[in-house]
Amino acid sequence: MAQITLEFPDGRTQAFNSGITVAEVAKSISVSLAKKAVAGKLDEKLVDVREPLLTDGKLEIVTADSNDGLMVLRQSAAQLLAAVVKREFAGVRLGRLAADEDGFYVDTEKDERQISADELDGLAAQMQRVIRDNAVVNRVMLNKADALTEVSGDRYQTELVEAEAADEIPFYEIGGQLVLAQVVAAPSLKALKHFKLLSVAGAYWEGKSSNPMLQRLYGTSFYKATDLEADLQKRQEARERDHRVIGNNLDLFFVDPKVGAGLPYWMPNGATIRRTIERYIVDKELANGYEHVYTPVLANLDLYKQSGHWEHYREDMFPPMEMDDDEMLELRPMNCPSHIQIYNHHIRSYRELPLRIAELGMMHRYEKSGALSGLQRVREMTLNDGHTFVAPEQIQEEFKRILNLMMDVYHDFDIDNYTFRLSYRDPKNTEKYFDDDEMWNKAQSMLKGAMDELGLDYVEAEGEAAFYGPKLDVQTKTALGNEETLSTIQLDFMLPARFDLHYVGEDGQEHRPVMIHRGLVSTMERFTAYLIEIYKGAFPTWLAPKQVQIIPVSEAKHGPYAHQINEQLRALHVRSAVDERSEKMGYLIRDAQTHKIPYTIVVGDDEVQNHTVSVRKYGEEDSRELPMDDFQVEIMHDISTYSRNDAQPKVDK
Amino acid sequence: MAQITLEFPDGRTQAFNSGITVAEVAKSISVSLAKKAVAGKLDEKLVDVREPLLTDGKLEIVTADSNDGLMVLRQSAAQLLAAVVKREFAGVRLGRLAADEDGFYVDTEKDERQISADELDGLAAQMQRVIRDNAVVNRVMLNKADALTEVSGDRYQTELVEAEAADEIPFYEIGGQLVLAQVVAAPSLKALKHFKLLSVAGAYWEGKSSNPMLQRLYGTSFYKATDLEADLQKRQEARERDHRVIGNNLDLFFVDPKVGAGLPYWMPNGATIRRTIERYIVDKELANGYEHVYTPVLANLDLYKQSGHWEHYREDMFPPMEMDDDEMLELRPMNCPSHIQIYNHHIRSYRELPLRIAELGMMHRYEKSGALSGLQRVREMTLNDGHTFVAPEQIQEEFKRILNLMMDVYHDFDIDNYTFRLSYRDPKNTEKYFDDDEMWNKAQSMLKGAMDELGLDYVEAEGEAAFYGPKLDVQTKTALGNEETLSTIQLDFMLPARFDLHYVGEDGQEHRPVMIHRGLVSTMERFTAYLIEIYKGAFPTWLAPKQVQIIPVSEAKHGPYAHQINEQLRALHVRSAVDERSEKMGYLIRDAQTHKIPYTIVVGDDEVQNHTVSVRKYGEEDSRELPMDDFQVEIMHDISTYSRNDAQPKVDK
Repeated sequence: MAQITLEFPDGRTQAFNSGITVAEVAKSISVSLAKKAVAGKLDEKLVDVREPLLTDGKLEIVTADSNDGLMVLRQSAAQLLAAVVKREFAGVRLGRLAADEDGFYVDTEKDERQISADELDGLAAQMQRVIRDNAVVNRVMLNKADALTEVSGDRYQTELVEAEAADEIPFYEIGGQLVLAQVVAAPSLKALKHFKLLSVAGAYWEGKSSNPMLQRLYGTSFYKATDLEADLQKRQEARERDHRVIGNNLDLFFVDPKVGAGLPYWMPNGATIRRTIERYIVDKELANGYEHVYTPVLANLDLYKQSGHWEHYREDMFPPMEMDDDEMLELRPMNCPSHIQIYNHHIRSYRELPLRIAELGMMHRYEKSGALSGLQRVREMTLNDGHTFVAPEQIQEEFKRILNLMMDVYHDFDIDNYTFRLSYRDPKNTEKYFDDDEMWNKAQSMLKGAMDELGLDYVEAEGEAAFYGPKLDVQTKTALGNEETLSTIQLDFMLPARFDLHYVGEDGQEHRPVMIHRGLVSTMERFTAYLIEIYKGAFPTWLAPKQVQIIPVSEAKHGPYAHQINEQLRALHVRSAVDERSEKMGYLIRDAQTHKIPYTIVVGDDEVQNHTVSVRKYGEEDSRELPMDDFQVEIMHDISTYSRNDAQPKVDK
Repeated sequence: MAQITLEFPDGRTQAFNSGITVAEVAKSISVSLAKKAVAGKLDEKLVDVREPLLTDGKLEIVTADSNDGLMVLRQSAAQLLAAVVKREFAGVRLGRLAADEDGFYVDTEKDERQISADELDGLAAQMQRVIRDNAVVNRVMLNKADALTEVSGDRYQTELVEAEAADEIPFYEIGGQLVLAQVVAAPSLKALKHFKLLSVAGAYWEGKSSNPMLQRLYGTSFYKATDLEADLQKRQEARERDHRVIGNNLDLFFVDPKVGAGLPYWMPNGATIRRTIERYIVDKELANGYEHVYTPVLANLDLYKQSGHWEHYREDMFPPMEMDDDEMLELRPMNCPSHIQIYNHHIRSYRELPLRIAELGMMHRYEKSGALSGLQRVREMTLNDGHTFVAPEQIQEEFKRILNLMMDVYHDFDIDNYTFRLSYRDPKNTEKYFDDDEMWNKAQSMLKGAMDELGLDYVEAEGEAAFYGPKLDVQTKTALGNEETLSTIQLDFMLPARFDLHYVGEDGQEHRPVMIHRGLVSTMERFTAYLIEIYKGAFPTWLAPKQVQIIPVSEAKHGPYAHQINEQLRALHVRSAVDERSEKMGYLIRDAQTHKIPYTIVVGDDEVQNHTVSVRKYGEEDSRELPMDDFQVEIMHDISTYSRNDAQPKVDK
């Protein structure tokens, strides 16, 4: 009989008869291991414990207490859910099923009404019944003809079977149903108790928008009840802060993949927030010596060949467009080459440095459609971009200046949970970086010097710099505790060389400037998503789409006064409105709260008579009656000082 | 001998022997006509008087006193210039030459230094000498081989000869030089006295940017000295108002065809003007009930198939980009489909109408590269766009409201030279238009009714409406007296049908809204170009890139005071700066005037002591000394009232 050689994780190798199963190998090691085995992992690929092994390879026995074991648990859950769906809904078609660190899913399609979220609890109960009554998962091998017969009537399963290269195709028999084995299930479902079916959502067959949309059923599972509890808690928290959910509830923006994946539409409410951020940051930069420009989103592809983007960054770029005159136009992936055009439009003198060019620069990145998400990962974005051109000796001073501006901006947005990371080149591999030893040494020590002068804490990361220069990253935590880069200040020795940039020095000679790339609040898309999550949708007054909602107790009696104070506020550019709907007062007040409007004003007989307003601030329990004049002072102060909404504690505190 | 039949402009036909020349035909009509003939026009194509006619056709004898005659004069001038250039510069290569309503040109290329503007007067003198000494233009036919020998060493002329289908190729012998006949010259140059060589500029061979750039020599000519004088006068005026010239002088913007034809870069000065216009118009619209949004410049091509743009407007659109998932993305040519997405994102109620969606919407138009010009004709533009969705019965009221807003905006920009044109469908060809008789009749009478109610003058143009609805155009005159459409209000019955738009009426039923497209100040690019020309670069204070230039008499003595008042002004958001250059006072003051800065302030001993400023307003002869406080009041009033610069009379008054 033919022999195969298996290598175990400890490096030991052993010969076995070809055709031995994973379970038998486990047993040959120890009976207890065989009992605990839920699958094998052969050359990094999960295999069923009943899989006959026919070739040499590295084998690991997968048990519950590992990440792979968790994957097998979830894969088993997916196969079980598929079996239950098949039993419950005659004629249902099954698409892909899979598991990952987030949970598991099964794609389904029915002729008529699709499976809805209401039915998930019923399906979960059926799954529990199978686990209780008949937890065994049989593995059945069918030849291709039999397999095709078994899945006949299901175009997706048929497609999957037809794509199989092997003659024998594995199925799992679970709860009396035979389902195509798309992943590896454990031989028993006994360990599968702590699971939850979570949600349903549309998903295109094979992820292509030209294919039919199937109904994807999502769930998750753990070995321990406490792990499941913690996960569900985290999901709940995430849902409450998810910028996509809040964005929908507050009518801030939407994305319609049919019209363009990763291309958000900003509704009036979201647009108001964005416009406020844009004007704020432009004014801040103008006051800090930046010169704002507008440059085109399109340029000749040659520009990105010269910059090196086309060589090193092409897969993130959009396909070029061929014009007349053999011109190839490209949607820019970054704004730096555009700002270099501005710099190069004149001969520059040392007197002009540091020259600070800034723009709300629209860019396009070819993100894979699967990676797109709300405002966080998009294909079209507008970056709060800036490039400072400095003489090498100005690096430290300019870097400090940018840092101060950045922290000033963070303060206005009430962002205080961030850390600094300085990235240097790898001192052991200096040949991997742009070749200018002196520049690197000087620049790195200037960055460090600036941080020290400002008394800021930072970590230093050797070998984390880009090819073209050292940088500072500002790291923050998202609402869910994930680390994210909020801002970056990046030195660049390379682009000035590639574009042969110069300035005339005090000595009358030509010198090469250094470029500093910097984004203060990243893209409008990403920053807005971030703010939605940290504020949980309750924007501070200066950013809130609607700042004041005025509710007359009786439209007939108090309407005129309501409109009068509304006009007064609007004349001060306060975003105020009168709620004219003929609903109950309690409903209107609750509705204003639901929309997280900073100030709800109620006016009735007293207010009309005293020329006062009854104000309730978002998140406060009680309302206060105060003269209209005082309220104006209060809200104008609130807006002009960017004051935060104290009622809504941010997650990052 | 074979006979041909020629038809004359009066309809008369006559037979001639084949091979008869144009000159001989002219002589057969009258000797005086033969003397005046400068060319023939056979089937709408100019032909030399010596051209033997071999086929039937319509023939016109071209004389000086016609537009064709003027063309022949200029074509003769071009051929003469080519001959003179060939004689003056050994080894010069000649590209295309041509004439049009603007003048004539000849493309040239030398090995070393190219022909410069300084040399034009010398060339003109040589041309005058040829006209005086030897005005005869001989027509010489060469066979292809001889022709190629004649032009050998000149790759462009060789290319032109090789492309000729005929065996015999015409040359002109002028002033002893043989030059390829690219156009039709008159047999004598005697009439060619009143010409002027104007300028030189680069032009790609055959207009392709991948080809070498030749030096194009421009000129113009007329039969009468007075016509030439008037034309040169007009050119001078145009140069002084040309937004491209002013844009360059005041460092407002630039276009580099190498980086992208029709893709302007806005320098800080131009960007300041644009940002001021943008904020002004957005705030104005918000105050007038518009909801501003941001929508993506890219969308799935399907959107433009549904809207009909792809079918009817494709040649003005950019090539689609193919993405993964078989998605085709298109740069939008118009914003209407994007705003329809906003409308359609919710079910709309009659209570929400009129719903006014507005955006500074970036769009892309595939203009031919030859048609591009400065900021006026570009490929990427940002439109002050707005779409109002109304119930049909609201058309008149909304139309009036838009008109009032539009005139309000014109007033703030001090635009008062405009007329209105209402365009209706052709009452005799109603089947050519969107099929809804009642809607057309009602809508047209509502537009008219609105104009009458507002007491506005207008002309009515039957048959000038678009397929999809009637419209109002606001016509103005550019600096050079050319008519241009400044704004338009356009009803649209078609897009609501194509996108199946609805609102729920008071009756609970679904109804179809009407869309109103409107642009108040057109695109940022075109409007800025227009403003540059009407203001001749002297922007009113609220729009000027730099509003105040402060010049200390002595930097050492008065510098601190200069900086102090500068800070005071900047705190009020006035765009002010101190001129710190160590140049003579007179030079600095003149320089501020050259840059058309609204206020020049000089501070010396008196001003420091009295806390005053010496202010000279742009265009005023004298300066005034006034307390700094008073100056602050004056300039803030100036800015907030959008007051015009009275010193610079606009052309359109």
